[in-house]
Amino acid sequence: MTEPEPTIALDAMGSDSGPEPAVRAAARLSLKGGTRIVLVGHTDALHDSLNTLRYDPAWLSIQHAPDVIEMSDKARESVAGKPDASLMVATKLVAEGQADALVTAGNTGAAILAAVSTFELLPGVKRAALAAVVPSPDAHGDKNDPFSLILDVGATMQADADTLVSFARMGDAYVRIISRDKEPKVALLSNGVEPTKGPPAVVEAHRRLLDVDSLRFVGNIEGVDIPQGKANVIVTDGYTGNIVLKMYEGMGESLLETARYAQHDRLAWRAGMYLLQSGIQRMRRVYDWREYGGAPLLGFRQLLIKAHGRSGGRAIANAVKVAAKAIKSDLAGRIADSMKDTP
Amino acid sequence: MTEPEPTIALDAMGSDSGPEPAVRAAARLSLKGGTRIVLVGHTDALHDSLNTLRYDPAWLSIQHAPDVIEMSDKARESVAGKPDASLMVATKLVAEGQADALVTAGNTGAAILAAVSTFELLPGVKRAALAAVVPSPDAHGDKNDPFSLILDVGATMQADADTLVSFARMGDAYVRIISRDKEPKVALLSNGVEPTKGPPAVVEAHRRLLDVDSLRFVGNIEGVDIPQGKANVIVTDGYTGNIVLKMYEGMGESLLETARYAQHDRLAWRAGMYLLQSGIQRMRRVYDWREYGGAPLLGFRQLLIKAHGRSGGRAIANAVKVAAKAIKSDLAGRIADSMKDTP
Repeated sequence: MTEPEPTIALDAMGSDSGPEPAVRAAARLSLKGGTRIVLVGHTDALHDSLNTLRYDPAWLSIQHAPDVIEMSDKARESVAGKPDASLMVATKLVAEGQADALVTAGNTGAAILAAVSTFELLPGVKRAALAAVVPSPDAHGDKNDPFSLILDVGATMQADADTLVSFARMGDAYVRIISRDKEPKVALLSNGVEPTKGPPAVVEAHRRLLDVDSLRFVGNIEGVDIPQGKANVIVTDGYTGNIVLKMYEGMGESLLETARYAQHDRLAWRAGMYLLQSGIQRMRRVYDWREYGGAPLLGFRQLLIKAHGRSGGRAIANAVKVAAKAIKSDLAGRIADSMKDTP
Repeated sequence: MTEPEPTIALDAMGSDSGPEPAVRAAARLSLKGGTRIVLVGHTDALHDSLNTLRYDPAWLSIQHAPDVIEMSDKARESVAGKPDASLMVATKLVAEGQADALVTAGNTGAAILAAVSTFELLPGVKRAALAAVVPSPDAHGDKNDPFSLILDVGATMQADADTLVSFARMGDAYVRIISRDKEPKVALLSNGVEPTKGPPAVVEAHRRLLDVDSLRFVGNIEGVDIPQGKANVIVTDGYTGNIVLKMYEGMGESLLETARYAQHDRLAWRAGMYLLQSGIQRMRRVYDWREYGGAPLLGFRQLLIKAHGRSGGRAIANAVKVAAKAIKSDLAGRIADSMKDTP
């Protein structure tokens, strides 16, 4: 489905903030052109929002979907029982080839399940991976991205060696495109740097990754190395990756809590925090998902980008841009190619 | 081996700092009495250090061990090939009942392997767990301990449901004794709070822990909840637990790095950091392993406390005190009792 002008199905409903951020993002991007956006949601709500904004109808269309999957809905039940929900209609557009990628800020479990049920796995890929970024001091690639990609973070709870190797290839392909990094450092997450450390699947994946010439495999990294940016692509199973990812969120909130506490507690600290404000803002930004481009679900011919539920217009726009870039650069084709030379 | 006056075998060699911290800690504790300490290491080195210090020979003795397992030694080879190393001699003292617990700041892998090979698993316990503390804003127990205990952090790479349930019991027993917390909150680490979230072993352990009346099981917690202190005992497998634990170390170092960078970068920031110094010192302390009491290896009739390789005298003394307290409170007996009512 690689086309010069990609089409993105944008699920406008089901996020924490309602349709506003998606509509704002779509309107703004339509004025720039180059990416067709199909806003999916209840036409009444979408028109209400859209009517207050400037946009270019040549690049923006609306697809009606009368129902919504809420954040609190159970994934399995809603995917099976709400075929007219915006997420399901948008997923169908992508699965049937009317759009190239799906962007949603709605229910993560439902989005993954909808994609897994209808998207087509790439040849050689057994399991999909949800990838996400964590802050990294090693700004890398032509874009100087201060992030590491970690995958899986919740799509595949248990990963065998085959699956971990495919995650390494998929993460590598994604980072090459999105961060414009020609040779990202790829690592396995383990409990020691020695090749023998970790559960059997990690040990076996390590052995096999050493033989993959097309990857810059830097070996195992430990938890201590994640915040220090020793790798640009960090490979682990979905259980561990999800915990690591959410620890960052918890750390960010703890830091802000400490900052708030300090501000109320002592005059000297308050003054100190004031002077540090630009630094703290910077830290807050790095810890703040809302400015990221969202989490890609990798391994399918079609692409899903899951934006954070609290995404504002800017974050949604970033997610759409990332999706468009991945499609234009033929991410799926590149992953499929890289799977061919699996040792 | 519960006695009114416990005997601790203290491995004096093999840490990052040589025998000095262990000898200093032993000398200081001997003057207080109440705990017999057997310093294990090369007599020449130990006497050299000891001769410069005040100590009470009624509570402190030396056991000669001519060899040392270094930090860089491979665990399996050194445990098999260096029977006269201080770690092996100290482990043997404990395994044979001449001491109640082993404290070491040496090679972690070798220490665990030595214990696993010679200590006796408690009835009902299939696998040992290494437990460690992470900072927590929920200061709990009579001691107001600002820590959560997480286990396993590296002894058992893969844990089935049985094993996770036994980890919950062991962590609970330890925290009740060491933090003097009558009812610590015990949680399973997972990728969602719902009982159905996580790999099969976690889902099954969740179901079974709900039936354990003697535990205050608070359900699953996510990564975001760890830094926020939602649980006092956090249960996971050794692969994931090790990564979580070491992330804290990495975060601490990153924070200090940021602080140092800020101090050199801008006048306003430098002033801000100065005003915040007491707060930063507090944070540094919480992130600093050296003041902790060490990591207990749980599940055996005998106890191992692994102190950090960079431990100073105070940290070693804390580890010895923790070991003595655990022995006096019959930690092993309490764990064995709690295993009896496994549902």
